[in-house]
Amino acid sequence: MSIHANRGVIYQGNGTVKVDAIPFPELAIGKRRCDHGVILKVVTTNICGSDQHMVRGRTTAPTGLVLGHEITGEVIECGRDVEFIKVGDLVSVPFNIACGRCRNCKEGKTGICLNVNPARPGAAYGYVDMGGWVGGQADYVMVPYADFNLLKFPDADQAREKIQSLTLLSDIFPTGFHGCVTAGVGPGSTVYIAGAGPVGLAAAASAHLLGAACVIVGDMIEDRLNQARSFGCETIDLKQDGDIQDKIEAILGDREVDAFVDCVGFEAHACGCNHHQESPAVVLNSAMQMTRAGGQIGIPGLYVTEDPGATDDAAKQGSLSMRFGLGWAKSHSLHTGQCPVMKYHRALMQAILFDKIDIAKAVNVQMISLDQAPQGYADFDGGAAKKFVIDPHRMVS
Amino acid sequence: MSIHANRGVIYQGNGTVKVDAIPFPELAIGKRRCDHGVILKVVTTNICGSDQHMVRGRTTAPTGLVLGHEITGEVIECGRDVEFIKVGDLVSVPFNIACGRCRNCKEGKTGICLNVNPARPGAAYGYVDMGGWVGGQADYVMVPYADFNLLKFPDADQAREKIQSLTLLSDIFPTGFHGCVTAGVGPGSTVYIAGAGPVGLAAAASAHLLGAACVIVGDMIEDRLNQARSFGCETIDLKQDGDIQDKIEAILGDREVDAFVDCVGFEAHACGCNHHQESPAVVLNSAMQMTRAGGQIGIPGLYVTEDPGATDDAAKQGSLSMRFGLGWAKSHSLHTGQCPVMKYHRALMQAILFDKIDIAKAVNVQMISLDQAPQGYADFDGGAAKKFVIDPHRMVS
Amino acid sequence: MSIHANRGVIYQGNGTVKVDAIPFPELAIGKRRCDHGVILKVVTTNICGSDQHMVRGRTTAPTGLVLGHEITGEVIECGRDVEFIKVGDLVSVPFNIACGRCRNCKEGKTGICLNVNPARPGAAYGYVDMGGWVGGQADYVMVPYADFNLLKFPDADQAREKIQSLTLLSDIFPTGFHGCVTAGVGPGSTVYIAGAGPVGLAAAASAHLLGAACVIVGDMIEDRLNQARSFGCETIDLKQDGDIQDKIEAILGDREVDAFVDCVGFEAHACGCNHHQESPAVVLNSAMQMTRAGGQIGIPGLYVTEDPGATDDAAKQGSLSMRFGLGWAKSHSLHTGQCPVMKYHRALMQAILFDKIDIAKAVNVQMISLDQAPQGYADFDGGAAKKFVIDPHRMVS
Amino acid sequence: MSIHANRGVIYQGNGTVKVDAIPFPELAIGKRRCDHGVILKVVTTNICGSDQHMVRGRTTAPTGLVLGHEITGEVIECGRDVEFIKVGDLVSVPFNIACGRCRNCKEGKTGICLNVNPARPGAAYGYVDMGGWVGGQADYVMVPYADFNLLKFPDADQAREKIQSLTLLSDIFPTGFHGCVTAGVGPGSTVYIAGAGPVGLAAAASAHLLGAACVIVGDMIEDRLNQARSFGCETIDLKQDGDIQDKIEAILGDREVDAFVDCVGFEAHACGCNHHQESPAVVLNSAMQMTRAGGQIGIPGLYVTEDPGATDDAAKQGSLSMRFGLGWAKSHSLHTGQCPVMKYHRALMQAILFDKIDIAKAVNVQMISLDQAPQGYADFDGGAAKKFVIDPHRMVS
Repeated sequence: MSIHANRGVIYQGNGTVKVDAIPFPELAIGKRRCDHGVILKVVTTNICGSDQHMVRGRTTAPTGLVLGHEITGEVIECGRDVEFIKVGDLVSVPFNIACGRCRNCKEGKTGICLNVNPARPGAAYGYVDMGGWVGGQADYVMVPYADFNLLKFPDADQAREKIQSLTLLSDIFPTGFHGCVTAGVGPGSTVYIAGAGPVGLAAAASAHLLGAACVIVGDMIEDRLNQARSFGCETIDLKQDGDIQDKIEAILGDREVDAFVDCVGFEAHACGCNHHQESPAVVLNSAMQMTRAGGQIGIPGLYVTEDPGATDDAAKQGSLSMRFGLGWAKSHSLHTGQCPVMKYHRALMQAILFDKIDIAKAVNVQMISLDQAPQGYADFDGGAAKKFVIDPHRMVS
Repeated sequence: MSIHANRGVIYQGNGTVKVDAIPFPELAIGKRRCDHGVILKVVTTNICGSDQHMVRGRTTAPTGLVLGHEITGEVIECGRDVEFIKVGDLVSVPFNIACGRCRNCKEGKTGICLNVNPARPGAAYGYVDMGGWVGGQADYVMVPYADFNLLKFPDADQAREKIQSLTLLSDIFPTGFHGCVTAGVGPGSTVYIAGAGPVGLAAAASAHLLGAACVIVGDMIEDRLNQARSFGCETIDLKQDGDIQDKIEAILGDREVDAFVDCVGFEAHACGCNHHQESPAVVLNSAMQMTRAGGQIGIPGLYVTEDPGATDDAAKQGSLSMRFGLGWAKSHSLHTGQCPVMKYHRALMQAILFDKIDIAKAVNVQMISLDQAPQGYADFDGGAAKKFVIDPHRMVS
Repeated sequence: MSIHANRGVIYQGNGTVKVDAIPFPELAIGKRRCDHGVILKVVTTNICGSDQHMVRGRTTAPTGLVLGHEITGEVIECGRDVEFIKVGDLVSVPFNIACGRCRNCKEGKTGICLNVNPARPGAAYGYVDMGGWVGGQADYVMVPYADFNLLKFPDADQAREKIQSLTLLSDIFPTGFHGCVTAGVGPGSTVYIAGAGPVGLAAAASAHLLGAACVIVGDMIEDRLNQARSFGCETIDLKQDGDIQDKIEAILGDREVDAFVDCVGFEAHACGCNHHQESPAVVLNSAMQMTRAGGQIGIPGLYVTEDPGATDDAAKQGSLSMRFGLGWAKSHSLHTGQCPVMKYHRALMQAILFDKIDIAKAVNVQMISLDQAPQGYADFDGGAAKKFVIDPHRMVS
Repeated sequence: MSIHANRGVIYQGNGTVKVDAIPFPELAIGKRRCDHGVILKVVTTNICGSDQHMVRGRTTAPTGLVLGHEITGEVIECGRDVEFIKVGDLVSVPFNIACGRCRNCKEGKTGICLNVNPARPGAAYGYVDMGGWVGGQADYVMVPYADFNLLKFPDADQAREKIQSLTLLSDIFPTGFHGCVTAGVGPGSTVYIAGAGPVGLAAAASAHLLGAACVIVGDMIEDRLNQARSFGCETIDLKQDGDIQDKIEAILGDREVDAFVDCVGFEAHACGCNHHQESPAVVLNSAMQMTRAGGQIGIPGLYVTEDPGATDDAAKQGSLSMRFGLGWAKSHSLHTGQCPVMKYHRALMQAILFDKIDIAKAVNVQMISLDQAPQGYADFDGGAAKKFVIDPHRMVS
């Protein structure tokens, strides 16, 4: 394999990213050989809301980090230990890096693999505290444990036609789906989705796929709520005053929902007239208020162990003021953590390939070039009702 | 409560039924008081494929039996112990009669209630060996343990508008759904539904509701296959020759399905050129052939402990020649029995009320009068691709 | 039924209870008839840790309340609508009162029945905010919905012999067991039980019954830790200084457990030298610290929506400072709420009757008379490593 | 690695095995490299009942086959791609060979791995139709996909002390446990175990570990029933006449059990005076008779797709005459297939290491040398109530 040029999206600190040259990937991480890895030519790589936490300076991400954990690609080189993935395969990469050999991976908990991050269970590409793996908002990227991690599309030509949906298998479609599954969404459920960013919209579309009777999405951005309505959701504009349970009752004839999915996380803001004020526990406390007794609360939205940008000292250490007794009185269960993408991606691929769902349309995919990535970050941070998908080699459009 | 006239559909033996006067129901069964019961004015009551087993003489059903276990009605009288159901409520009646107080009911297994049938666990209205309860293909019917059994529609006017779908909650929608659930159908599944009668069509629609990627329906009647195609199913005509797994491969690119639902039961016939020949284990053996290793087989289709009309002695005693070792080699699990309707009817009602599914259209509901019931039985036995729903008081049409 | 005298344990306010005459029970609550109810002659009735919350003034319990929700009794009168329970039956009463007819009861969630408490889902005998039902630390008590609620012992003579264990089926054995089940305890698990009061000891014994490999119990009272060791638990004395994870590592060779059960609740105290200081979130935060990534946290310990006796304003409103981001990073799930006793009591009865477990010995049952109840409350509040069981009619000892 | 001598147990046809020289293992199978494999020095390797099916000529096993799929060993050489297993590790080998990369392995279904057997899903060491892998009743054996397949004992010295129990993790302990899990055994269950061979005894011990209230074991060999009684089981001697349900009622006070585990398989014999007569469906039909409505039937006993030694033509093709309608009337579910050992072995290892269970004692382990293997086969075939464990290097005794 000869030397290729490579470019990537690099975190600059202070809310900025740039596109610049980065090294071509090797089958290694640090001094550790990755003969089980492959090199991918990146076909699509998406900008994620959780990238924004880093770019906004709400984490300890170091400058110089190559971003990007939502990757779909074509295999151009296989490590010598790779047996089932072949050069030329078109594949989806789960954002969680997993070894496939530890206790957690064997239990299907690939989001907390024990072997890929010395600091804690769980790793991801291009993410702070997630093992130091190089991100994939780039022309090329290395994927370790390729036989285990990668989902091969059965027919590459068919896959290319549906690539705008398939690219969402690397993270947000499974993440939104996982939120719904852990919230107990099933046929006939009434569901509240907090947040209409891409994960929230993916969760809403997942709730429909799971057979939910009524899906209500709450957000403060009108464009995002319009997007939710475009595929059959009810919506609540949280910038408006008024009791949210009154609004739910107007929709459902019931003041509580069966299932609640928090697609916001720790950078939550208060509702109504205080919506400019950060209030990290507001979604969790709303969840306990709005979910029926016996209901479940799925929490794919990110909560952190440290938040240097928080407004109070407790939140800086990740401590939130939760009205836990309310949830207890209602026998709630709360389900947290990174989505183990591998648990879902094959089935969701089938749903896309057989035209059961048009997830690209639901989240409003917008294709951009690698050079447009900084603008994509800025637009996304500004609340655009779009999911930005980078197409570095112009293979898609 | 004054004396009302009442009429019902009565089994005459020898393949015939007639409509005739029957006693007005009392809050009792035999000498047993049913103060926990209610009297319903029947709004709709459906003819079921399992009624046909009796009418065709394939059971030991006694002549004079008032048929009908699929009932939706309006409450006109409540027993003194009824606390939560009120006169005027519009309600769906699960076909399984359940006490709500025994171990099985408490575990949600209302299909095998221990207190409502002295002969064996489980009871139903108007059905052989099912406890001697009077059937509901009638003007009026008594429902015991009403607080427990009945599903009240939240808004009677809204319910009347959707009554052609809601009437299917008493049996075939939950039954088809249960077949899919026990077969492990979920988002992305590939599913084979054996049989395109009303239960098969309801199972196919349920598979779609559960998020299945591809639903394949097999039958020998072209009209029923057309009906399945009308809501997005793939179909296989079993009267045609040719290897069924070749046909599945042509649809899926795979010779096996993830999940198999047997909606045929013990009166199954051989495929292809032998389709006139009864072959009671053919569907079960096909299931083991066509389902992938690790898959599950849901069996809502009825298998009996005695079959006086069977063609061989073993089958007369309910013994079938099953290639069980094949299923074992593939680690299959097989799930049998009557659907516990109560486990599902509330959620499926929500799916109907919020327009998530149009189940009446999927199974092609045809409204008829009580007087038309005998013709409905005959047409259904002839393979009409319709679900006949009796409207005794002309309240619907 | 003639007039009987009756006595009960009455909350006096200010940390005191007294035994005094109370009305003989009727088949009614307020103006509501309970023809579905029975009158029990109380055979045993236990003092519960959650009674202490009331007596210590940590709730809004009104003076004059007849206490007691852990009841075993002999049926002496049946309401006219009771069908399956008979006079003379010896029965266990789940502490949660449930109608057996609402959505939650049908789903097995009897701890949050919708029909027995106008204020919120869920009711109990003799408990603040739990529907106003009269408690059972008395000679006689009324139990509504008797056919649904009661567990009849199959052989009354055999039951009398094992009554010291069977009396624990009304609450703490199922409650401890539920904590373990929701924490995911199974064969081979390593488990930490926070708190060695009767519920904690019952949870520890339940963990053994469920096949746990190693059960570690933490408390601050040496007698209770001795009790835990008496049936094979490891223990940690939380009054001692030193890092708790070091101590766990010394026992397990691992710094984290698979499953964590919080049997303490909101009146928790800090560990080590600060053990006199109340710290309502300390157990929950320890749970997230000590439980492995991917583990589950069962929380049968009570958390309240209001705590008038709390030391800070947030806690007075039931708000706790939780390091939720830590749990999120480890993909924890948290399971709260009252145990739905009916889900477990029959199986646990079988475990007792077939001598699979000696739960009375595990929690150190101490029989007392009704007159000794005030002393029992005081001793229990003082940390006695005993479960006090009142035997009002001296039928046991 | 220098050349070692190697010996193995070789199937000779006609009911005989011999110990002879075999090639020293290489990191390959056929022409396929296994750089992911390791070479083990076999510490223990057990004779299994399913080996007997081959030796008795009831399969198409070829002569010359090196037998043995129950292996525990010490790693003496690692393939270059092995990352987490090290030379010197003491490990348990699941009898199912699995790649850890296919859909089934990712779902935890390692018994039906798609990549290790060209003929069908699922593979094993030294077994007919199971992929052609060399067996481990030998001095040395090769294990592929070592990082995935192997369970490393955390402390080799501790493991050596408990090796007679730990050796059972490779097959029969998980297999018996799986039978119980799929039969729904839990705390308080009543359980019937069909067959008191080593798998049956392991299932009985597993039922106790799972908290069963009462475990009843049926067999025709008095020594095996004695063995079952030695650890607290009830027993039924199937050679004796009399109705089996009467005998169950005498033990339980109930004519049916909650859960049934078939540890016999296709070489079953009729009960009572016909016990010399083979009757391949007798256990399955008994299961449907003896299991309560709503119960589950776990079937770890082997059923085959072809049985050349069967007494009738149907059975030769694996077809059995099953009274399926009886199971259907009782809403049974049936669970078949090879146990996926990896799903259970870690937890069961913990149960052994923390002295929660003495499984070696329950199944009566008898250590023998490799030279004694032929005698072990013969004794086992004769019905010895022992589990023969070969210790080829005399490392144990």
